[in-house]
Amino acid sequence: MPELSDACLAAMRRVSTATLTTALFKRGLRNVFMQGVRPLRAYEGNLVGPAFTLRNIPAREDLDRIEGFANPEHPQRKAIETVPPGHVLVVDCRGETRAASGGDILMTRLAVRGVAGMVSDGGVRDSASIAALAIPVYCAGPAAPLNLVAHHATETEVPIGCGGVAVYPGDLIVGDADGIVVVPAHLAEEIAAEALEQERLEAWILRRVQGGAKLPGTYPPDAETRAAYEAWRAAQNN
Amino acid sequence: MPELSDACLAAMRRVSTATLTTALFKRGLRNVFMQGVRPLRAYEGNLVGPAFTLRNIPAREDLDRIEGFANPEHPQRKAIETVPPGHVLVVDCRGETRAASGGDILMTRLAVRGVAGMVSDGGVRDSASIAALAIPVYCAGPAAPLNLVAHHATETEVPIGCGGVAVYPGDLIVGDADGIVVVPAHLAEEIAAEALEQERLEAWILRRVQGGAKLPGTYPPDAETRAAYEAWRAAQNN
Amino acid sequence: MPELSDACLAAMRRVSTATLTTALFKRGLRNVFMQGVRPLRAYEGNLVGPAFTLRNIPAREDLDRIEGFANPEHPQRKAIETVPPGHVLVVDCRGETRAASGGDILMTRLAVRGVAGMVSDGGVRDSASIAALAIPVYCAGPAAPLNLVAHHATETEVPIGCGGVAVYPGDLIVGDADGIVVVPAHLAEEIAAEALEQERLEAWILRRVQGGAKLPGTYPPDAETRAAYEAWRAAQNN
Amino acid sequence: MPELSDACLAAMRRVSTATLTTALFKRGLRNVFMQGVRPLRAYEGNLVGPAFTLRNIPAREDLDRIEGFANPEHPQRKAIETVPPGHVLVVDCRGETRAASGGDILMTRLAVRGVAGMVSDGGVRDSASIAALAIPVYCAGPAAPLNLVAHHATETEVPIGCGGVAVYPGDLIVGDADGIVVVPAHLAEEIAAEALEQERLEAWILRRVQGGAKLPGTYPPDAETRAAYEAWRAAQNN
Amino acid sequence: MPELSDACLAAMRRVSTATLTTALFKRGLRNVFMQGVRPLRAYEGNLVGPAFTLRNIPAREDLDRIEGFANPEHPQRKAIETVPPGHVLVVDCRGETRAASGGDILMTRLAVRGVAGMVSDGGVRDSASIAALAIPVYCAGPAAPLNLVAHHATETEVPIGCGGVAVYPGDLIVGDADGIVVVPAHLAEEIAAEALEQERLEAWILRRVQGGAKLPGTYPPDAETRAAYEAWRAAQNN
Amino acid sequence: MPELSDACLAAMRRVSTATLTTALFKRGLRNVFMQGVRPLRAYEGNLVGPAFTLRNIPAREDLDRIEGFANPEHPQRKAIETVPPGHVLVVDCRGETRAASGGDILMTRLAVRGVAGMVSDGGVRDSASIAALAIPVYCAGPAAPLNLVAHHATETEVPIGCGGVAVYPGDLIVGDADGIVVVPAHLAEEIAAEALEQERLEAWILRRVQGGAKLPGTYPPDAETRAAYEAWRAAQNN
Repeated sequence: MPELSDACLAAMRRVSTATLTTALFKRGLRNVFMQGVRPLRAYEGNLVGPAFTLRNIPAREDLDRIEGFANPEHPQRKAIETVPPGHVLVVDCRGETRAASGGDILMTRLAVRGVAGMVSDGGVRDSASIAALAIPVYCAGPAAPLNLVAHHATETEVPIGCGGVAVYPGDLIVGDADGIVVVPAHLAEEIAAEALEQERLEAWILRRVQGGAKLPGTYPPDAETRAAYEAWRAAQNN
Repeated sequence: MPELSDACLAAMRRVSTATLTTALFKRGLRNVFMQGVRPLRAYEGNLVGPAFTLRNIPAREDLDRIEGFANPEHPQRKAIETVPPGHVLVVDCRGETRAASGGDILMTRLAVRGVAGMVSDGGVRDSASIAALAIPVYCAGPAAPLNLVAHHATETEVPIGCGGVAVYPGDLIVGDADGIVVVPAHLAEEIAAEALEQERLEAWILRRVQGGAKLPGTYPPDAETRAAYEAWRAAQNN
Repeated sequence: MPELSDACLAAMRRVSTATLTTALFKRGLRNVFMQGVRPLRAYEGNLVGPAFTLRNIPAREDLDRIEGFANPEHPQRKAIETVPPGHVLVVDCRGETRAASGGDILMTRLAVRGVAGMVSDGGVRDSASIAALAIPVYCAGPAAPLNLVAHHATETEVPIGCGGVAVYPGDLIVGDADGIVVVPAHLAEEIAAEALEQERLEAWILRRVQGGAKLPGTYPPDAETRAAYEAWRAAQNN
Repeated sequence: MPELSDACLAAMRRVSTATLTTALFKRGLRNVFMQGVRPLRAYEGNLVGPAFTLRNIPAREDLDRIEGFANPEHPQRKAIETVPPGHVLVVDCRGETRAASGGDILMTRLAVRGVAGMVSDGGVRDSASIAALAIPVYCAGPAAPLNLVAHHATETEVPIGCGGVAVYPGDLIVGDADGIVVVPAHLAEEIAAEALEQERLEAWILRRVQGGAKLPGTYPPDAETRAAYEAWRAAQNN
Repeated sequence: MPELSDACLAAMRRVSTATLTTALFKRGLRNVFMQGVRPLRAYEGNLVGPAFTLRNIPAREDLDRIEGFANPEHPQRKAIETVPPGHVLVVDCRGETRAASGGDILMTRLAVRGVAGMVSDGGVRDSASIAALAIPVYCAGPAAPLNLVAHHATETEVPIGCGGVAVYPGDLIVGDADGIVVVPAHLAEEIAAEALEQERLEAWILRRVQGGAKLPGTYPPDAETRAAYEAWRAAQNN
Repeated sequence: MPELSDACLAAMRRVSTATLTTALFKRGLRNVFMQGVRPLRAYEGNLVGPAFTLRNIPAREDLDRIEGFANPEHPQRKAIETVPPGHVLVVDCRGETRAASGGDILMTRLAVRGVAGMVSDGGVRDSASIAALAIPVYCAGPAAPLNLVAHHATETEVPIGCGGVAVYPGDLIVGDADGIVVVPAHLAEEIAAEALEQERLEAWILRRVQGGAKLPGTYPPDAETRAAYEAWRAAQNN
C-alpha cells in the first residue's frame, strides 16, 4: 500500500463527502457511504486518514468477561495502542447500537497517540466527555453498556464491514458533517484531485446561483457556463 | 384548489403541529404527521406553504446516469425551477435514507426563488451548508450520496406518500420543531381558525398550570375553567 | 421497598450511566440500558429518582376518544397528578415513535409538582417548549400526534417494559447524556457506592492517560498502578 | 362481560378474518388485525374463542431463573392452568421473536384442558411437535430459546397489546389462514350476523365472477345485482 | 414498446430468476430482484409477462371510504378490468404489510380475464382461497385488512417501485420459487437467449458435479470443461 | 479442539434445539440460537456437525466481479471444496437477505463431498432445487441475486457472527425444525448427555400431561413426580 501524498490528504481535508461520493459513483462505486454513522458533534474540518480496522463478533458470556481487558493482547485494547498516528480506527460493530465501542479513556488514549479519529457503526459511552475531546468520533450514537455486552473483539487489520460499507486496511476515510465515505486506497490520489477541482467549480456555481442563475445551463454547467468558469479560473491564477 | 387566505397562513405560522394533529384527529384523520422527517436545525417560526410534490422511484443503473442532469426537463431539476414561490417542495423518497434528495446548490436555488421550504423522507447532502441557509429543510438526516444512487425522479404535482403520509398537491404543509403535519387543503381554513383559538386557550391553561393548578378541571377545562378563560378573553379584547 | 439513602442518591447524581452498566454487568445484569431513549436536550447533572410507572396498550378507536381526558381518573392524567415528588415517571409506549407520551402542559405540571423527570420510549409533542423546561425529559424524540392516536393508558405502578428494559416500580432511574439505566431497587445502595469509587479511580486513570500512560497496566490498573492510586487516594484523604 | 351466543360463535367459525376486518372498518376500527402473527400450519376451520390474556415484560437475569417454574403461582404456568375451556390464551410478548412463548408440553396441556387455541406475538419452541397437535397455535414463528431468555410473565386477564392490537379480556379472537382479528366483545354479536350475511353475498358474487361477470356493478353490487342476489336468496330459502 | 417474441417468452418460462439476475448483473444492473415478495404457494412453471402497474399512496380517512369501490373508475378496480391478458399486474404498496392488495374475488377476476399473475409488495386477504387458484400470486404474505386501511390507489401504467425495484410498464416480470425479477423491456430478448444457454450449460455442469467433479475448472468452466461441453452440445444437436 | 465422541453426536441427533438452549441457559449462555435462520424445508432428523466458517464483508463493485469465481482460491469456492465431510459450513452474511450465499451447484457439491449441511444468515438461490436435495440447508430464505451483489468472501475458519450468534470453528451446530443452536465446543459432550436425559424426562412428562396431569408438580417435576419417573426409568432399564 503506497503512502498517500500530502497533496491528496490536504485536498481530502477540504472536499465534501458529497463530492467524493459523486466521484466514486462515476467510477461505478455506489456503496461507499456508511449508513447510521454520524459525527458525535460538529467538528471543524474533515476527518481524514487511512483506515486501521478492528473486527468484532457477537459476545459469548463465558468468553467475554471483564477480566479479559487486563490482557494487553486483548484485540480492542491492542488496537488502541497500535493504530498508527494519523490513521483512523474503524470498528466493525455489525451495526449493533446496544453497546459501546469504547469510552472516554480509550478515546483520550487515541487522541494522545495522535490518531486521526475513530469510526464505528456501534455506540460510544461517556458520550458527553468524548464530545468534549478534539479528536473526531463518528458512531451510531451514545450507548452506555460496555462493549462486552455485545461484542468480542477478534483481530485488527483485516477487511471489515462498517455501516454497510467494505473497509480494507489503508482505505482512506473521510468524514464531514454528512458522515463517512470510504475511498479505496488505489483511487484516493485521483479522486482527491478531481474532487478538489469539482469543489472549486461548485463553489463558483453556487455564487452564480446565489446571484440568481437558473439551474439549466448552470448546474451542471453547459459549454457557455463552463467557458465562463474557465475564464474566471484563468483570471484567478494570474 | 382555492387560494388559502392570509389569515389562514398567518394562523398556521403561529400554531404548533401538536395542536394541528389534535384538530385533525377530531375529524377522524389519524395519520397526518410524517414519520422520520426532522428539521435539519432549529428554525425560527413555522414552515408553512402549499405542497408542490416530486415523486421518485428506485433508480436503475442504465437509466440513472449523471449525464441526465444536463437535461433541463429532468424532473428533479425541473421541480426546483417550477415550484411556485411560497410553496413547499415535498419529495417522495420512499423513506430511503441512503441517498440525498439534493444538496446545497439546489437548496440555494429554492431559497433564491422564494420557495417556502423543502420536505423529504430521504436525506440531504452538504447538510452543514444547507443548515446555514435561512430556508427550512426537513428530511431524514444527512446522506452524502447523490440521489441517483437510489432514486429516479418521475414527475411533479401528483399525489405522493412522504414519511408515511398522503400528500396531495396543494395540501398545506406545516412544520415546527416536532416535524411536519400535512393539512388537507379543504380543511385548512377551518383548522387554522380552530387551532389558533385552541392555542390561545392552551397558553392560558399553561400559565394556570405554571401557577399551580391541578390538571383535573384545568386541562381539559371544565365549565368553571372555561368560564374563567372566556372572561379573560373578553377582558383581553377590550 | 426501602427508602434509598441520601448518600445513594447523591452518588447516583455524580456517576455515569456507563459506570453503572459495568457494575450491573459484573452482577450478571446485561440488559439495563434503554434502547432508543434519549435526553431531549443536554441537561446539567444526572436525572435520578425512583420509577413510578405508567402502562399503555395500543389504542382502539371506539375507546380512545378525546373526551376521555376530562375524566380525572384517566390513567395518564392521574399518573401526572400522583407520581410522588422526586420520583421519575416512566412510561411504557411499546417503542412506538408515531405518537406523543405528552406535551408541554403535562410536563410543566410534573415540574411544578417537583417530579424528578419523565422517561418514555415513545415521543413527546411541543418538544421545543419541553426542551426549555428545567425538568429532564428522555424519550424517543419529537412526535406531534396526541397519545390517543396510538395509546390507551391502562394503569400505574405495575412492572413495565421501557426501551426494552424491565422497570419495576421503585427501581432507581439514572439518566445522563448517554441515556437511561435502570438500577434494580435492591441493588441501588451497593451499586452507588461501588460506582462512585470506580469513578474516582477512572478520573485518576484518565489523568494518567492524558499524561501519556499506555493502556496496558493502566486501564484496567495492574497491581502497581492500583498501588499508586491507593497512595494518591490516601494522600487525598489527609 | 355477557356470554356470546352459540349463533355468534357458529357464525364466527365460518366467516373469514378478511370479512371481519371490513365490518370493523365500517365502524371506524382500523387496527384490529395482528401483525407478524401467523398460524403454525394450515388448520381446518377458524380459531374462535374469547381472549384470556397473559402479559410479559422484559426478563431480568436475577429474577427470571429456571427455578421459578416450580412455583405453581408462576403467571405463565398459572395461565395455562386457568384459561377456561373454549377460550383463547393470548400472550403479549412485545413482538419479541428471539424466545418462545411456550413448548409442546404447555400446548398439550392447553389442548387437554379444552382450550380453543393459543395466540402470541412471540415464538414457540418444539414447533414441529406443536404443529402436530390439533389445537391451533398462532405465533411469530419457531424460536427454540425458553421464554426466560426474554420474558418475565407478570399477570393474567389484564388488557394487553399483541401483534400491535389492543386485546381486552373477553374480546373475541378469530383466526384463519390470513391470521388473527380481534373483535371487541361488545361488537361480536352484531358483527357475526353482518359478516355471515356478507360472506353469503360474496360467495354468490364470486360465482358470478367465475362465470365471467365484470367487477363494475358486480363487486360491490349495484341495485340490479343486489336485486338478483336477493331473488336468489329468497329462492334458496324456499 | 415492442412486442416480445414467443421465443423470448418461452425461454423466460424455463430459466430461473437466479440465472436472470446474473445476466443482468453482467450488464451492471444489481437491483432487479424484489425484496419481501414471495409466491403464495409453490406454482408450476414460471410466472412470465409484461408488467401492468398500479400505484398506491397512503390512505386518508376522509377520501378512502368503502363507498369508493362502487365507482367503476376506482383505479384499483379499473386496473383489474384493464390489465391485458398475458400481462402481470404489479402493485406498488410501498412494502406495507398491514393491509391487502386484494382478495379472492379480484384475483378470480384476473384469472378469468387471462391475466398472467399478480405481484405486490403488500399483502393479500383470503389467502387460502387465492392459493387454491391457478393464477400465480406473489406478495408480502397474508393480511386480512382491506386495502383502504393503508392505501389509496392513484393510477395505472406509470413507473413504480415494488419490493425496492423500479418497474416500468412493459418490463418483463419473471417469477419462480425464489421470487420476482424485473427484466427491463429493452433487454428482455437478449437476456432470454443468454439465460437459456446459461441454463443448458449449468444443467450439464450440475450433472458433472453430481458425478464428483470438483468446482475448480468446472464451475465456472475452464477452457477444457467448456470444450467438453461444446462437444456434448454438438453431439446433442446431431 | 478435541474430536467429539460418537455418543455426543448420536445424542445431538435426537435432542431438540429447545432442550439445548435450556441446557446452555443454565450455564449462563443466553444468546445461542440464530435469529432469522430457518430450514429451507422440513428435514428428517437433526442437522449435526462441527462448524466450518466462511466470512463475508460487503461487496465493492471494482473487486467483486464475476470473473473472480474462476480463481480456485476464491474463498467461497475454496470453502466449498475444503469443509471436511461431516462438518457444517456456516456462512456469515451479516443478515443480508438481498443476495444468495450460493445456489444448487454449490450445495450439490457440498452434498457429494459428504458435508453435513449449510447454514447462512443470508439467502440461497435456486431454492426449489436445493430443497429437493437431501443435504439440510438453513438460511434467511430464497434470494435469487448472486452473492457478488452484496458479499465479498474474505476467509475461512475464523470466528464469525451468524444470525446474531458467535460461531467459532469447531463449535457444534445443531438444527431442527425450530432452527439452529450453536453449542460451544468445550460444552458439547456434557450438554449432549444432559440434554438426552432431559428429553427422556420430558417425553415421560408429556405422556403424563397427555393423560391429564396438571402442570404444578408435573412440569417441572416435584419430588414425587421425579421419584415416579426414576422408578419408571429403573423399570425400563431392566
